[in-house]
Amino acid sequence: MSARVNRQIILAARPHGNPKESDFEIVERPVPVPGDGQVLVRNILVSLDPFNRILMGNANSDQTPIALGDTMFGFTVAVVEQSDNPAFAVGAHVAGFTGATGWQDYAVSDGSDLRVVDPDAAPLAANLGVLGVTGLTAWVGLTKILDPKPGGTLVVTAAAGAVGSAAAQIGKLRGYRVVGIAGGPEKTRHLLDDLGLDAAADYKAPDFAEQLARAVPDGIDTLYENVGVALFPALPAHLNRNAQVALGGVMSQITRTGAFEGPDHLPDLLRAAIYKTLTIRGFNVTEFYDYYPEFLADLAPAVATQKLHYSTHVIEGLEAIPVAFPEMFTGRVAGKMIAKIG
Amino acid sequence: MSARVNRQIILAARPHGNPKESDFEIVERPVPVPGDGQVLVRNILVSLDPFNRILMGNANSDQTPIALGDTMFGFTVAVVEQSDNPAFAVGAHVAGFTGATGWQDYAVSDGSDLRVVDPDAAPLAANLGVLGVTGLTAWVGLTKILDPKPGGTLVVTAAAGAVGSAAAQIGKLRGYRVVGIAGGPEKTRHLLDDLGLDAAADYKAPDFAEQLARAVPDGIDTLYENVGVALFPALPAHLNRNAQVALGGVMSQITRTGAFEGPDHLPDLLRAAIYKTLTIRGFNVTEFYDYYPEFLADLAPAVATQKLHYSTHVIEGLEAIPVAFPEMFTGRVAGKMIAKIG
Repeated sequence: MSARVNRQIILAARPHGNPKESDFEIVERPVPVPGDGQVLVRNILVSLDPFNRILMGNANSDQTPIALGDTMFGFTVAVVEQSDNPAFAVGAHVAGFTGATGWQDYAVSDGSDLRVVDPDAAPLAANLGVLGVTGLTAWVGLTKILDPKPGGTLVVTAAAGAVGSAAAQIGKLRGYRVVGIAGGPEKTRHLLDDLGLDAAADYKAPDFAEQLARAVPDGIDTLYENVGVALFPALPAHLNRNAQVALGGVMSQITRTGAFEGPDHLPDLLRAAIYKTLTIRGFNVTEFYDYYPEFLADLAPAVATQKLHYSTHVIEGLEAIPVAFPEMFTGRVAGKMIAKIG
Repeated sequence: MSARVNRQIILAARPHGNPKESDFEIVERPVPVPGDGQVLVRNILVSLDPFNRILMGNANSDQTPIALGDTMFGFTVAVVEQSDNPAFAVGAHVAGFTGATGWQDYAVSDGSDLRVVDPDAAPLAANLGVLGVTGLTAWVGLTKILDPKPGGTLVVTAAAGAVGSAAAQIGKLRGYRVVGIAGGPEKTRHLLDDLGLDAAADYKAPDFAEQLARAVPDGIDTLYENVGVALFPALPAHLNRNAQVALGGVMSQITRTGAFEGPDHLPDLLRAAIYKTLTIRGFNVTEFYDYYPEFLADLAPAVATQKLHYSTHVIEGLEAIPVAFPEMFTGRVAGKMIAKIG
């Protein structure tokens, strides 16, 4: 790092639909200089998330996209290189949890978006996944949005994904009967054999409806919905009276813009909500960052004792990100995608 | 009543879409004889409700329809003619609130579906409307499903209807800013001048979107939704962060069966739920009958002192019901529809 260059991945073009390599450009700029009370951090791990696609624009989202030419926002794990903030010692590991540390080698911060992480408590990558915003999202959904009852049936969609697999396992730790929905036999095998879920259904299988019916013989008491509309219409018929639904993500529709083709599934959901006295709650994890300490106290022991399984898909080098990120939207990547850049 | 004949309106045919006169038949049968512990009641007022259409079948509902040839279920106000139940004196007025007393002159009951009503406390017809299941529905939505804050903006759809006008006025009594949505200038005038709402928007007007935007300059904090999908898609854009939505009815879709034409509005609602941290709750008033005493204690004084406005559309005679009931689905009937039959 003697050259003291800050490589940054900037948004070169707004994608239509799935992102592609040419939407990004890598530029080299001077390393920023921290001011009074600030720290300079050097990123070593960068998290690649659906959230990043939303920030690129032309997404089905209310989130304001970044400007063309801006450095891509993203969650990172970093090392403190300089510090004028007593809360952050030089050499400490930190996690940037608002995205401001971004897809780049270096960032400055006043520390409000950083938390110190203990590299001995868990692998550093866990702080971007199961102990990071990914895990917090799952935990908020299960503890602050839903109120499942032990023994009741919890269904998690996109259960092999980063958030879904965390949610499903938190459900198991808490004593719920957990059913995971995922695409393809390898993912459903993973749900049963590796995560220890009680049942699984493959939404890509021709007999998905039958698989789902067999997986929830007593109906669904709580539903953690991660996908959006592509999967959701199959589920209301199995929801029990007074069932709760948490809407945590819309992965299937974030690259979509404009109207969605019919049929219109809204009337079915409204009717189900009325006749089944459903409670449906959406949430955006950015409003729940204050719960981070409670989340960590609750979940870190399970991660340390390896009761919580998580998988990562690690790519090497900042320069690999523009090629690797679009792969996330193919459904072929298993595990939390992380770029090791330093 | 010396002839002692029980006229009954039976279901002669299941409608497709809106009901019509020929779906009903009037038959004459012997007056039923009450058994041990039972009462014989003579209906004097019959309530005509969207609920009746659902019970006729081919409806967009999970409710089991009645059989062809069965007497139409319906809420009534009746007089006790014979009684072997000490809770019901001969000559007392009662309201039948499960629908079992039905569209007929006479019914027997063990009393579990009857409550005694005081003809001096309010006009008898009020017990089928603002003090009946209609009012209970509105009250449950505002007090048990939603939790509006004084000063916040409550929007009520179908606000000129029986349930909607009760909900809107309960909202005013509790100090909310209430905006009503209804179809046509006469109905919106009624909302403003007669019900005293703070603003109104006419969903049939070409400039509905602008009217709605002007009516909710600070957005919508709580939404009481009575209509179903036809109106709902316009509203999510105005919902505030952490807004609450109660789904109390699906009037616009109860005569529909089969798939609904696109575009698919579900993704928009899911997205709004996530980005605005919405809570959406459906409810079915039949599960809230236990709250009736609390409801009555809360609302009867306002009805007695005429702080709560309600309008009725009274038709004369049991034989007029088959002609009048289909009129309810034209949108031209204002006020709670009641047949005076004795």
